[in-house]
Amino acid sequence: MKPSIPKGTRDFSSTEVTRRNHIFSIIKKAFELFGFQPIETPSFENSSTLMGKYGEEGDRLIFKILNSGDYLKKVDDTLLSAKESNKVTPKISEKALRYDLTVPFARYVVQHQNEITFPFKRYQIQPVWRADRPQKGRFREFYQCDADVVGSGSLWQEVEFVQLYDTVFSKLGLTGTTIKINNRKILSGIAEVIGAKDKLIDFTVALDKLDKIGKEGVVKEMLEKGITESAIEKVDPLFNFSGTNIDKLNALAEMLATSEEGTKGVEELRFVTDSITSLGLQSATLTLDVTLARGLNYYTGAIFEVAAPEGVKMGSIGGGGRYDDLTGIFGLKDVSGVGISFGLDRIYLVMEELGLFNDVSLPKPKVLFLNFNENEGLQKVKAIAELRSNGIKAELYPDVATSNNQQKKQWKYVDKRAIEYVVTDVEGEKFNIKNSNSGDQKLLTINEIINFID
Amino acid sequence: MKPSIPKGTRDFSSTEVTRRNHIFSIIKKAFELFGFQPIETPSFENSSTLMGKYGEEGDRLIFKILNSGDYLKKVDDTLLSAKESNKVTPKISEKALRYDLTVPFARYVVQHQNEITFPFKRYQIQPVWRADRPQKGRFREFYQCDADVVGSGSLWQEVEFVQLYDTVFSKLGLTGTTIKINNRKILSGIAEVIGAKDKLIDFTVALDKLDKIGKEGVVKEMLEKGITESAIEKVDPLFNFSGTNIDKLNALAEMLATSEEGTKGVEELRFVTDSITSLGLQSATLTLDVTLARGLNYYTGAIFEVAAPEGVKMGSIGGGGRYDDLTGIFGLKDVSGVGISFGLDRIYLVMEELGLFNDVSLPKPKVLFLNFNENEGLQKVKAIAELRSNGIKAELYPDVATSNNQQKKQWKYVDKRAIEYVVTDVEGEKFNIKNSNSGDQKLLTINEIINFID
Repeated sequence: MKPSIPKGTRDFSSTEVTRRNHIFSIIKKAFELFGFQPIETPSFENSSTLMGKYGEEGDRLIFKILNSGDYLKKVDDTLLSAKESNKVTPKISEKALRYDLTVPFARYVVQHQNEITFPFKRYQIQPVWRADRPQKGRFREFYQCDADVVGSGSLWQEVEFVQLYDTVFSKLGLTGTTIKINNRKILSGIAEVIGAKDKLIDFTVALDKLDKIGKEGVVKEMLEKGITESAIEKVDPLFNFSGTNIDKLNALAEMLATSEEGTKGVEELRFVTDSITSLGLQSATLTLDVTLARGLNYYTGAIFEVAAPEGVKMGSIGGGGRYDDLTGIFGLKDVSGVGISFGLDRIYLVMEELGLFNDVSLPKPKVLFLNFNENEGLQKVKAIAELRSNGIKAELYPDVATSNNQQKKQWKYVDKRAIEYVVTDVEGEKFNIKNSNSGDQKLLTINEIINFID
Repeated sequence: MKPSIPKGTRDFSSTEVTRRNHIFSIIKKAFELFGFQPIETPSFENSSTLMGKYGEEGDRLIFKILNSGDYLKKVDDTLLSAKESNKVTPKISEKALRYDLTVPFARYVVQHQNEITFPFKRYQIQPVWRADRPQKGRFREFYQCDADVVGSGSLWQEVEFVQLYDTVFSKLGLTGTTIKINNRKILSGIAEVIGAKDKLIDFTVALDKLDKIGKEGVVKEMLEKGITESAIEKVDPLFNFSGTNIDKLNALAEMLATSEEGTKGVEELRFVTDSITSLGLQSATLTLDVTLARGLNYYTGAIFEVAAPEGVKMGSIGGGGRYDDLTGIFGLKDVSGVGISFGLDRIYLVMEELGLFNDVSLPKPKVLFLNFNENEGLQKVKAIAELRSNGIKAELYPDVATSNNQQKKQWKYVDKRAIEYVVTDVEGEKFNIKNSNSGDQKLLTINEIINFID
């Protein structure tokens, strides 16, 4: 019976934890530099907080926690014997694992509204759980890294999020990312112009294939989906949608001139792109992408998505947008919010592929003291304490070697963990220290060692 | 309908997260300085991994996760109609939330034994969940911070753990802690001497009351529990058990001379206490406590427990010990382990009580740029980007004030968040910056600001 873990979950080795923490740490520092404050919420929430917030599919994917004790006792017999799981669930489960960080955040804001100073810029880095079918890059337990602002409608927030993405990815060494931006109001404008709000998804899905199947193919698909020829004509500029963000915005302004909402969307996007042009970015590119229709159900303004550097095959490594009524579901109306998320697992995979972890040092001792002679133990442990109080990672091989084989085992340990310095033995007050890479050996006092290797 | 969270769980505000991270960070740094490597395991494990490992009570307190989909479909009708929750649970739940970090660690070691270099020093800082009755300092979701070594029987590990406790508590400013140490072999020796292994718990529980009820009271209780008078006489030294650790060990050596195991226990303890005397501690005291019987079922050698500084009423803030067969439950025999744990929540409460968080700075902007004039927006945002790229936390109040009231709101924001510097407005290339505490105002360029406040 070999032990195992549930599918879709992962053990993380020291190397993996260290690399993940490297990413977390850079994201966290940037969040704080930009004025976001950390909060944390419980891993499980009352089911009533989560259920019904993510659509039917979401409800299905939420992990439910069984009530404690004799949970069946009070369940109605006929309900039970009908064996309809969906109906029994609310009777035997009152809690559920967090599905994302957004709904718990909305709950937090409403519950603590009197303690919070608005506008409230919060960040949250915690795991979430989904009973999804596991596949490459998709897990049942994974981290989300979210930054949101609630209580401000200012477009400077959108500008700041673009800068934040750029800062984080630049610091990670992940240059060449593309920050795609769109605006829900532009999509609504397009829907108005094509005269069919309900066809908007069909429309963007078809438009997104322009590169692959050409204008002819896209138009054919749109017609098949019931979008009229005259409607397609009205948005003809979208089929030759290239050039700078300014070119695109000019084309959109003209195309959406008859739509008040569409025009507003163009203005908003212009503010963000113009500001970013003035401010400059370190390594990312901001690109207007009208096919970006992510989270169409809840975003009301800007929509963001980040693509990995060209050449790396990976879905989006970040995304977000503005939502005008996040906390409304919990009874606090008219609080506008905007936020972005970093996809930790995908960022990890991209960085691995690009060799960006090479400089992340693993937690291992700088100096290992071999343990070949019981009588040297205390002197070595004293030296180790001295090194540690100077911030130098040092260790004694714990078990004393009483045979050649056991000595070999200690040398193997040095090898396997690639430890840089080895103290072999003691002569008076001095220690024989050897550089594992060069083979150089020196006889030094502990203070000399501190100066030598620091 | 006011939103709420499940009982026994907590939301953490920015202040709380920051203080908790302060503790985590010091523990983590010390773990790594001492050569421990981080690992992480999934939040939920297969039920078979956890069930039966913590006794009947433990099994009851494990949070079980309901299977996804139509989980009732395959459950036997008669089993269901009998409504015996205990028997139904394994049919509708295959996963459970982690109850501690020790069993998942044992599972990890066995599962990954071919990738691990032994002796393996791992640390793990993750939440665990228990369906316990919530009370002060006891939660249903809480963090454990564990460091363990597997694959070494060396007593230097015990010595190192005492140093590790001392290092962490000293760095936290939590001086005056008492590290209590005992050894399971001494307890076995006592059991041998009193001729009743099954009475050992009764014996230590009674002995522990010596301070409160005196020798007479303790002897009375022991007799009531069926420990014979002649047995009590044999361990008479324990009733005058004071003095240094050496005094106590000498008394124990004499008392347990007839017990091989007891004598071994005395030797082991002597090694640890002698070594620590030679090495010295920064702020903690190591004290031999023969009433310490923590985790008697699984510890086989050293037993540790840490008491908060005198005057603070709080249960133990850390504990651990040596267990000779941790991984045996998963089929890997003869791997000795020893480990300690830090109780984050209690450490937090003690530090709060002692005012040790006063120097922990909260994540907030160093400079807030007021937003009273739309035309100054871009210039201010440029200045903020400059500050941030110099590592200075700066922020623009996002919404432009269009009335006196809205201006007041921005000043209130400065007040509530106690922000040190405020930039009010712009004159050419210079910024009016005000120190909130002194009221001093200066007109400076952005480079002058960087030099001024850094």
